[in-house]
Amino acid sequence: MHQSKLFSKTRKEAPKDEEAKNAKLLIRAGYIHKNMAGVYEFLPLGLRVMNKISSIIREEMDAIGAHELKLTVLQSKETWEKTGRWSDEAVDNWFKTELKNESKLGLAFTHEEPLTNLLKEYIDSHKDLPLGLYQIQVKFRNELRAKSGILRGREFLMKDLYSFAKDEKEHEDFYEHMKGVYKKIFDRVGIGEQTYITVASGGDFTDSFTHEFQTLCENGEDTIYLDKEKAIAVNKEVYSDETLEKLGLNKENLSEEKAIEVGNIFPLGTRFSDALGLTYKDEKGERKPVVMGSYGIGISRLMGTVVETLSDDAGLIWPDAIAPFKVHLISLDQNEASEELYNELTEKGIEVLFDDRELGAGVKLADADLIGIPHRVVVSAKTEEAGKIEYKKRSEGESSLISTEELIEKFMA
Amino acid sequence: MHQSKLFSKTRKEAPKDEEAKNAKLLIRAGYIHKNMAGVYEFLPLGLRVMNKISSIIREEMDAIGAHELKLTVLQSKETWEKTGRWSDEAVDNWFKTELKNESKLGLAFTHEEPLTNLLKEYIDSHKDLPLGLYQIQVKFRNELRAKSGILRGREFLMKDLYSFAKDEKEHEDFYEHMKGVYKKIFDRVGIGEQTYITVASGGDFTDSFTHEFQTLCENGEDTIYLDKEKAIAVNKEVYSDETLEKLGLNKENLSEEKAIEVGNIFPLGTRFSDALGLTYKDEKGERKPVVMGSYGIGISRLMGTVVETLSDDAGLIWPDAIAPFKVHLISLDQNEASEELYNELTEKGIEVLFDDRELGAGVKLADADLIGIPHRVVVSAKTEEAGKIEYKKRSEGESSLISTEELIEKFMA
Repeated sequence: MHQSKLFSKTRKEAPKDEEAKNAKLLIRAGYIHKNMAGVYEFLPLGLRVMNKISSIIREEMDAIGAHELKLTVLQSKETWEKTGRWSDEAVDNWFKTELKNESKLGLAFTHEEPLTNLLKEYIDSHKDLPLGLYQIQVKFRNELRAKSGILRGREFLMKDLYSFAKDEKEHEDFYEHMKGVYKKIFDRVGIGEQTYITVASGGDFTDSFTHEFQTLCENGEDTIYLDKEKAIAVNKEVYSDETLEKLGLNKENLSEEKAIEVGNIFPLGTRFSDALGLTYKDEKGERKPVVMGSYGIGISRLMGTVVETLSDDAGLIWPDAIAPFKVHLISLDQNEASEELYNELTEKGIEVLFDDRELGAGVKLADADLIGIPHRVVVSAKTEEAGKIEYKKRSEGESSLISTEELIEKFMA
Repeated sequence: MHQSKLFSKTRKEAPKDEEAKNAKLLIRAGYIHKNMAGVYEFLPLGLRVMNKISSIIREEMDAIGAHELKLTVLQSKETWEKTGRWSDEAVDNWFKTELKNESKLGLAFTHEEPLTNLLKEYIDSHKDLPLGLYQIQVKFRNELRAKSGILRGREFLMKDLYSFAKDEKEHEDFYEHMKGVYKKIFDRVGIGEQTYITVASGGDFTDSFTHEFQTLCENGEDTIYLDKEKAIAVNKEVYSDETLEKLGLNKENLSEEKAIEVGNIFPLGTRFSDALGLTYKDEKGERKPVVMGSYGIGISRLMGTVVETLSDDAGLIWPDAIAPFKVHLISLDQNEASEELYNELTEKGIEVLFDDRELGAGVKLADADLIGIPHRVVVSAKTEEAGKIEYKKRSEGESSLISTEELIEKFMA
């Protein structure tokens, strides 16, 4: 895409009321716009990143045979009263609204209740199980304060998967498998190395442990105790001698770290199926409750986490897999030669943002650093003379003169 | 996809409280589920149809150089007060909610206000115009009654495009061009023949005419007067001798028809840019208000309209372009031969739903009619013996025995 036609604008300053590093950078680089605290619009660049993260997650969900559907934002009081989660005392971050006849509705912050309710019409026999259903859907949480940018939005995009199994054994098989699937997703997105499975509390949901995926980050809200060698951590909230013993971890091998929770997986047992009456007939014809699990990834939060962990003073640095474009091609008064290269790259299916704007080198290079596309290519009078192009990775300091063929090879491997 | 693994279930009866033909059929065929009146969950089959409609629309929006972004559901009172559309007297279908600090928020039913407001930071010069921005986004309307299924949901999916121009002339060029783009979209979706551009009132927005796209349908809520030869209609709300004269239409050539509004385009003038202060600097350096237009297509409504107009007593009939699958392959006790054909078709990129379930021919064929995939292929002992397959279009009565090669040719043309 020609940058002169991109709907975006970089800026020197973020809004004064913005405190979060992720939002400041994303606003300055033209990826998002702040509507109000915790509520951000996604501009074309930001939407491209979100769509790439969503695509990776969707591929991994489809690969395990999960089915995608789309549940609703509007939620009826009756369903949520059955599980005891309707009242503002039980759940303190509901947004509520009402119909013209004054019936109260909620805006979904999660979807266990409506999905369990729906499945009463679709699960009948043991043959219908196990089953995995997921969606990529906007969610709402009425946060008292919303100062963390897109890490903790009042309105945010989430992938939520729910599993339905015949018994604990079948549930555990699915649950264990999902640990690997999540690891793969964070690897693919580009934060696998800094992201650790972390034992956590089940809160209201379950007496057993649940699991989070925590990305190391000095601005993180969570504190974890990490055994780097075993690649497992313990959330501070369940950190005790008893927990460590259960997990076979040794205090001496743990380091205290700050981290951001980018995903979580929960065993739900029969809490929701009991409350809402979701059962199946087993092989003997007996009715049994379905055993459930839930598996979340905050997509906008994941995007914010990448910004918090991978950016530098000059701006964003996107991993290849979720970058809005692979190559940032910058023409320094060489638009004709650049246009040729642009066509050559795009014909090979390489996504290029082509800075064809009539601006000085300083502005263009600073914008490129801020926008953070992983591979930068400069075409200038100097490179033309050498019959080469100047190539630099956004994450590295040194540039080099290489040929077009060498450039293309980098992406065709 | 193997039907035995599809998350879906056909049923004989729709919920008793469901009145709309579209919702009844879509629920019975396993495309949607009713959460409450006007609020429907989309199951995998329904989501596939919605995604196909969205893709067609996205392609056509991108083709005219419009930029996709994603605005927010949550809306702040301050912005909407400036245009006089915050109060429930001015807009009678708001859903409202509030933050913990009791600040009131709205759930967006449209997005003129937040987008105009956002653009104050992005439009500065005449060089930034003209500009088209669009999104595919969930919207909310607090309908007093919601009895029309997905034709008039309280929560629904919409494509909304907004245009920004320097002056009336530039606006009109864009607006006229969009008429053709909309016609093309309805053609591609498969209801072009029954869909007519219709002159309508601007309501609160504008004194000039606006334009709707109306699909003929006996269950339609709207009444239009259609000049079939000129392929233009007039909405009853502006039907008068004066209007006909303006448009050069002759009463004698008009027929009264029932129809469903599937899209609309509105000239907005400077109503929103004046109220919110969206201006640009012209070539002389003078500040002028931006001239706007809006262009909507209800995606879930469009899906419902296809059902209302193209189904028959046996079930749904999808046009090829938006069908969840192209081919419904039905094995009658010939799973091995069917599996081979399934592989052959899918390898060629043809989307096939393969009914591999262990059920009788009657149930399978009735399900196929209900689900409405456009091309049906039956593999049975009889067809195997003949070395052929049985092919039938869902929209036609007669089946024929043809070879696999002949079948493939139908989709490779």
